[in-house]
Amino acid sequence: MPIVTIQVTREGTKPGNDAVTADEKAALIKGASQLLLDVLNKPLESTFVVIQEVNTENWGWGGLPVEAYRKQRGLKPG
Amino acid sequence: MPIVTIQVTREGTKPGNDAVTADEKAALIKGASQLLLDVLNKPLESTFVVIQEVNTENWGWGGLPVEAYRKQRGLKPG
Amino acid sequence: MPIVTIQVTREGTKPGNDAVTADEKAALIKGASQLLLDVLNKPLESTFVVIQEVNTENWGWGGLPVEAYRKQRGLKPG
Amino acid sequence: MPIVTIQVTREGTKPGNDAVTADEKAALIKGASQLLLDVLNKPLESTFVVIQEVNTENWGWGGLPVEAYRKQRGLKPG
Amino acid sequence: MPIVTIQVTREGTKPGNDAVTADEKAALIKGASQLLLDVLNKPLESTFVVIQEVNTENWGWGGLPVEAYRKQRGLKPG
Amino acid sequence: MPIVTIQVTREGTKPGNDAVTADEKAALIKGASQLLLDVLNKPLESTFVVIQEVNTENWGWGGLPVEAYRKQRGLKPG
Repeated sequence: MPIVTIQVTREGTKPGNDAVTADEKAALIKGASQLLLDVLNKPLESTFVVIQEVNTENWGWGGLPVEAYRKQRGLKPG
Repeated sequence: MPIVTIQVTREGTKPGNDAVTADEKAALIKGASQLLLDVLNKPLESTFVVIQEVNTENWGWGGLPVEAYRKQRGLKPG
Repeated sequence: MPIVTIQVTREGTKPGNDAVTADEKAALIKGASQLLLDVLNKPLESTFVVIQEVNTENWGWGGLPVEAYRKQRGLKPG
Repeated sequence: MPIVTIQVTREGTKPGNDAVTADEKAALIKGASQLLLDVLNKPLESTFVVIQEVNTENWGWGGLPVEAYRKQRGLKPG
Repeated sequence: MPIVTIQVTREGTKPGNDAVTADEKAALIKGASQLLLDVLNKPLESTFVVIQEVNTENWGWGGLPVEAYRKQRGLKPG
Repeated sequence: MPIVTIQVTREGTKPGNDAVTADEKAALIKGASQLLLDVLNKPLESTFVVIQEVNTENWGWGGLPVEAYRKQRGLKPG
């Protein structure tokens, strides 16, 4: 009966994408559910996964909105 | 001072609706607040209710996005 | 497939109790699940309820830990 | 490594704004991160801040959607 | 910069354990972080994982505390 | 009516403390509530703050439980 909540920024993380794709979401759901089965023997059908996409201006890191922080530190999106 | 968070898929669950309606949201708020009053004596004005609607492609069940899982299992939305 | 999260302070709210009792928890679970069935036609077996009890020193209201706020305002627990 | 989640209604709270502005979001991020540094010595770069904006019809207070509750009580947005 | 929150009941799920073990927690953390790297190219060091253990009497399924629901349905813990 | 949730590891962050103290919690509550007043004009009495303390073995960073990650990277608690 686990619940896995995955919070990520609403942006693409591979070239040519500007958002998390439906295929990537399906892969996150499959992988998270499988992880709970492998580690804790939780049946796939008893796990819920919720993906929350957060606009980059709503995500803070280092005291700054994340895009400003990445620019300051020379980081790629991630 | 309770906080009740209700997470549901962003879809209609009655014929002819394709989303949770304002009336249904008001009924969830009223019912959840009344429940805390009935069971734990919490005054209505000290309870917050937050409804989070989640796109169906962001909700996983059985290792699949929920619409794929329902199709596989012959389940209705719910 | 809803998820209902109920956050309350870890304290009794009826005379003679110093905690939320197992019976009160069962009543919260029953009522919240029934609410989703009544309002959105969600089957009981597809709703998860999670109750989170929070120590009073970890709950803030009015800029103060909740027990200090209640004392300042002459409020009963709630 | 703290995580600070700030949930607010999706509306303006100063004259002429109908939403939380990017500058206000940046101020929330800066202030919350600084608070964790000041109180618990957490380095700025180890704190995440997530701002969640909630539509007013999805936020309940006093057993009512918040705009109905404010009207009933003669409260300003807040 | 993802955040993965894993909520599970506070109980053992393998013979002889009565709780989630430190090794199982480490495996959940490793697997969830790797998943975000594999699917969305998120560097390991930018992912936080938070495991929340919930007492069984605080977890509801099917309108009942989970242990009562499992007994009614003849389900194993999971 | 904002809700501010602050998640931190359950450990002391100043010499001689092995936990977040009641005074530190009160300072977090005061500061977070004041921040919402300063930035968004939210009255103190309409803000809830919830502090969640997470055991270090339940917090992951860099694919590892946080204490293992800090040791690997030569980081202080934070």
